[in-house]
Amino acid sequence: MMNFKTLASAAVLLALPSLGLAQEADVTPPNEEIGFIFTTFMFLVAGFLVFWMAAGFAMLEAGLVRSKNVTMQLTKNIALFSLAAIAYYVVGYNLMYPGDAWTMDGVIGAFKLAVLEPVGLAEATPDLTYASVGSDFFFQLMFCATTASIVSGTLAERIKLWPFLIFVILLTAFIYPIQASWKWGGGFLAPGIDGQVDFQDFAGSTVVHSVGGWAALAGALLLGPRLGKYKDGRTVPFMGSNLPLATLGTFILWLGWFGFNGGSQLYMDTAGNVADISRIFANTNTAAAGGAIAALLLTQILYKKVDLTMVLNGALAGLVSITAEPLTPTLGVATLIGAVGGVIVVFAVPFLDKLKIDDVVGAIPVHLFAGIWGTIAVVFTNDAATIGQQLYSIVVVGVFVFAVSFAIWFILKMTMGIRVGEEEEITGLDMAELGMEAYPEFTKG
Amino acid sequence: MMNFKTLASAAVLLALPSLGLAQEADVTPPNEEIGFIFTTFMFLVAGFLVFWMAAGFAMLEAGLVRSKNVTMQLTKNIALFSLAAIAYYVVGYNLMYPGDAWTMDGVIGAFKLAVLEPVGLAEATPDLTYASVGSDFFFQLMFCATTASIVSGTLAERIKLWPFLIFVILLTAFIYPIQASWKWGGGFLAPGIDGQVDFQDFAGSTVVHSVGGWAALAGALLLGPRLGKYKDGRTVPFMGSNLPLATLGTFILWLGWFGFNGGSQLYMDTAGNVADISRIFANTNTAAAGGAIAALLLTQILYKKVDLTMVLNGALAGLVSITAEPLTPTLGVATLIGAVGGVIVVFAVPFLDKLKIDDVVGAIPVHLFAGIWGTIAVVFTNDAATIGQQLYSIVVVGVFVFAVSFAIWFILKMTMGIRVGEEEEITGLDMAELGMEAYPEFTKG
Amino acid sequence: MMNFKTLASAAVLLALPSLGLAQEADVTPPNEEIGFIFTTFMFLVAGFLVFWMAAGFAMLEAGLVRSKNVTMQLTKNIALFSLAAIAYYVVGYNLMYPGDAWTMDGVIGAFKLAVLEPVGLAEATPDLTYASVGSDFFFQLMFCATTASIVSGTLAERIKLWPFLIFVILLTAFIYPIQASWKWGGGFLAPGIDGQVDFQDFAGSTVVHSVGGWAALAGALLLGPRLGKYKDGRTVPFMGSNLPLATLGTFILWLGWFGFNGGSQLYMDTAGNVADISRIFANTNTAAAGGAIAALLLTQILYKKVDLTMVLNGALAGLVSITAEPLTPTLGVATLIGAVGGVIVVFAVPFLDKLKIDDVVGAIPVHLFAGIWGTIAVVFTNDAATIGQQLYSIVVVGVFVFAVSFAIWFILKMTMGIRVGEEEEITGLDMAELGMEAYPEFTKG
Repeated sequence: MMNFKTLASAAVLLALPSLGLAQEADVTPPNEEIGFIFTTFMFLVAGFLVFWMAAGFAMLEAGLVRSKNVTMQLTKNIALFSLAAIAYYVVGYNLMYPGDAWTMDGVIGAFKLAVLEPVGLAEATPDLTYASVGSDFFFQLMFCATTASIVSGTLAERIKLWPFLIFVILLTAFIYPIQASWKWGGGFLAPGIDGQVDFQDFAGSTVVHSVGGWAALAGALLLGPRLGKYKDGRTVPFMGSNLPLATLGTFILWLGWFGFNGGSQLYMDTAGNVADISRIFANTNTAAAGGAIAALLLTQILYKKVDLTMVLNGALAGLVSITAEPLTPTLGVATLIGAVGGVIVVFAVPFLDKLKIDDVVGAIPVHLFAGIWGTIAVVFTNDAATIGQQLYSIVVVGVFVFAVSFAIWFILKMTMGIRVGEEEEITGLDMAELGMEAYPEFTKG
Repeated sequence: MMNFKTLASAAVLLALPSLGLAQEADVTPPNEEIGFIFTTFMFLVAGFLVFWMAAGFAMLEAGLVRSKNVTMQLTKNIALFSLAAIAYYVVGYNLMYPGDAWTMDGVIGAFKLAVLEPVGLAEATPDLTYASVGSDFFFQLMFCATTASIVSGTLAERIKLWPFLIFVILLTAFIYPIQASWKWGGGFLAPGIDGQVDFQDFAGSTVVHSVGGWAALAGALLLGPRLGKYKDGRTVPFMGSNLPLATLGTFILWLGWFGFNGGSQLYMDTAGNVADISRIFANTNTAAAGGAIAALLLTQILYKKVDLTMVLNGALAGLVSITAEPLTPTLGVATLIGAVGGVIVVFAVPFLDKLKIDDVVGAIPVHLFAGIWGTIAVVFTNDAATIGQQLYSIVVVGVFVFAVSFAIWFILKMTMGIRVGEEEEITGLDMAELGMEAYPEFTKG
Repeated sequence: MMNFKTLASAAVLLALPSLGLAQEADVTPPNEEIGFIFTTFMFLVAGFLVFWMAAGFAMLEAGLVRSKNVTMQLTKNIALFSLAAIAYYVVGYNLMYPGDAWTMDGVIGAFKLAVLEPVGLAEATPDLTYASVGSDFFFQLMFCATTASIVSGTLAERIKLWPFLIFVILLTAFIYPIQASWKWGGGFLAPGIDGQVDFQDFAGSTVVHSVGGWAALAGALLLGPRLGKYKDGRTVPFMGSNLPLATLGTFILWLGWFGFNGGSQLYMDTAGNVADISRIFANTNTAAAGGAIAALLLTQILYKKVDLTMVLNGALAGLVSITAEPLTPTLGVATLIGAVGGVIVVFAVPFLDKLKIDDVVGAIPVHLFAGIWGTIAVVFTNDAATIGQQLYSIVVVGVFVFAVSFAIWFILKMTMGIRVGEEEEITGLDMAELGMEAYPEFTKG
């Protein structure tokens, strides 16, 4: 089975010029088995960091919704991760790495029945030149789950539980893996394959973050804004009920992102690779800092008051922005790339409100807009990227994900309905749908 | 000193058939010193993940008790971990690995005075074929502390601070290490030793989780239910005061469990071992997902409403269920094993209430019942396990831990008393015993 | 460029006698490139753990301030980390490792213009005998940011946002790196250099923690206590608004400290080094436990009630105390060193109140007083330390940091003012300065 190692090698080679010792070190790892242990363990550490992002999204979203919808938001987050874990192993993982099925020459993944069988970690023949299949699966699963986490924030406070979870299953079993296979499964966006388009997206500004953003946008359009959000032409601010939770969530995501971007180096078998991972850690951190500071300064200038929720989203936008290319920028350029992400968020949040697109936590500005920006910004530091191919890939992925998501949301809306009733929305989803308050002793009433 | 490495090797050999490259790879590590560094570092990473579970228990329990008892619950959690850290090094660690003291042929551990001297990490001769003593101690300590964390949740909201802490010292210095020595210290439940019973419990569904559960059950029986919990034949629901905290605690525990189960592979010196750890990570994750989804579906079906606290406990029960054998199941079987754990929780919580056993956070269903299930489920995927030996070991450990715990709780009850006064319970332990509210500005009353 | 590796090697050599296999193992790592990968990856793991401490400080402080100042405290914490990240790379990192610039023979760092240019991770020649520059930078940055985190807690609830952030920039760009260069950058406090003073401070009880403490003390003196804190000769207790958050913050810091102290071994290329890191993990853990238990017992004895906030600060003081020498003590001695830290906190908090120095979260007792204690305690277990050189170094660092910090705070006070107006302080900084409540739906009033 051909898998994404081939592509990864190409990525590593592109990254090499940035490091002095690259030539000699990257070619021959010290020892195959030692390299295997290093890379596998790296995937496990990076993987548990990305797992931790699921908790980050849960806390961020629980902190930014009103207290009457917190239990529901927590339920959605733990449920979506659990469903993603199952859907990705039963269908998604194999669909994402179709291997020989690509000979079908399809562009929507490889719908060969053989590909859809559940992944068997035990039977796989370990490849000592790479890493264990289990570690790769564990790491890749977390990326898939991230996509679903992004959607839940935007649609909070009015979407019904079960239609949301059905969408999550379809997103993680099919939508994410199919488009991810185009880039990471050797498909038509993979670099260096058959002279195809050479799309650069190191850890997934487009392949992960914009995908979540497009799916969220499609849902938000069909779902409509929360009751009372837009009144007489102006936007009514709905304050997050617990900002320490939102801040904790942001720090968790920031921490998890070291695994998200660092692990996407895909190899830690040589000095060159581990040095590259180090630079990715440093750049990822500084881009987040750049995004946070940009939002800090900009909200002070624009509104004369620093806006904490913008600073948090600025940091996250910085992280999304650097995700498409965390290796080649210098620290200074990484800071700037992140800072632009922070600026985007500060302007995009009110812009969406002007369009009456109600995104409860700002996931569309953070993951979609900053994801697009980050994908474009690759061209500034990585010669292997061209603006044409980056835009083409952004559009192809965007059209596919938005169209399919819209269709699914539309069918769900027509059949089972996706929005709770007015009364339930006013009461809050916690009591109306779940009968359980998140803070039964605290709220004023 | 004979230690559990011997046993560990046996465990590794049993696990090998699951992996293609096992034969050649596991036998000769690339280099002794490199293998030593890999395994030692793995213990440190796994160990800090299991440490993190102490925070998980603290948050889970603080979220599930009423706000008037939160400061007390936090105090108990940080105190129990600290006491466990001291008690385990002064007594427990040496008692758990008695080495030659086993020649005494005792079945309640090795009460040789020489064994009870404080562990000396510096003096130990490092064994380059394994890992550093310090890393092993660090890792094993965290397991011992976990046992105590389990107890605190069940007995919340009415037990006095100091008798609880005295019990913790006895549990972590004696009860846990003695029974753990039977399995992990070369005792009569250790696999492959002198043709003894070959008990299979990879990371401790029985040795860790059921032990906490039995100790908690003994305490709950002697302590009695909280005031007003069972009234006129029905159970009064006492709602958790902070569900985001409870959810955060669950995510923390889930994360920590990768270290709990993964680190229990005990070796990371070969491709075979690190590949096994990878599979353990993947299986652990999917079992948790299975438990969460089972509880999600079942509470929807039974009560027409999803119950978040059941979903959280379902995930934890999934984790406990896979702990006895996280390596040999396929992903599909691991999901099912976890799902059964989730089902057990949904039925066991009301069942305990019917018996008027008041378990505040559901620790007995999660850690004892799912722990028993997980221990039995080993026979489905690991040929080295027989139902007879699994049941025998469950019973032996259970009888010992329950009886000794009951005796200790009974003595504590007779001497210093274990329960706060009625008035203090109604006021809440925070103001009555500690004079400090957890949320002084928030609560309504 | 000479960097701190030279010093690190010296430190390693001093530590060796504690481990049996040291002689043969430490001298010749198995293979240069493998050693490079091990050490670099260790820096990354330790680095993300120390990063996580930024979240710990944020949660600790958000939990200990009153609810009307929580948004501000969160804003300061995420902003200070972000600013530290930029300031340290643009100025601090190069200033801290001035290399040949030390030939200037200066004692306040190396103000050579060439040194002040932004760090370039890409251009650096990797040194296969050590670790990647990126990983070293990432790890060192987190220490610098920690210093700033310490300051924010003491000055909470009355300092203005922007003067605080300006101080943070100066602290992380200049004050911290200059004094750190004295010890870790080959300066006049570095061990074994030119027969200079041989100051022992393994992970920075003085170089990191006391520095934060001195800077905080200078600020607190110029800022004055919060309104109503000291009234008619007695101290009015201002209760923390969210003790679960404060406890979570403590657990996060405890977790992060494994990276803080463990990573300061600076090498993981041999069995000897990883065994040392293991002992550091074990000692760090037990010192925290010792500090927590000491505070638990002492507050019970002194006040007849356990004080959770003291227990939390006791654990942190235990961690700070062991930071100057986490390697050479036995577990027993490490417990005692930590316990003394816990005792110091219990007495120092009311002592500061008696002096009307208002330290909102107890950062001065924890980081400054326990930091001094820990630095002195090195002499009990490490023969390379003398009480004279330890005291001399404490004083030199203290005088420099306190004097410069005081001057900066004074200038800020005279120019832009550092304290919010009375009315704003009474209203709370959240609404007065930021217009955003942390818990808009919860608080009573």
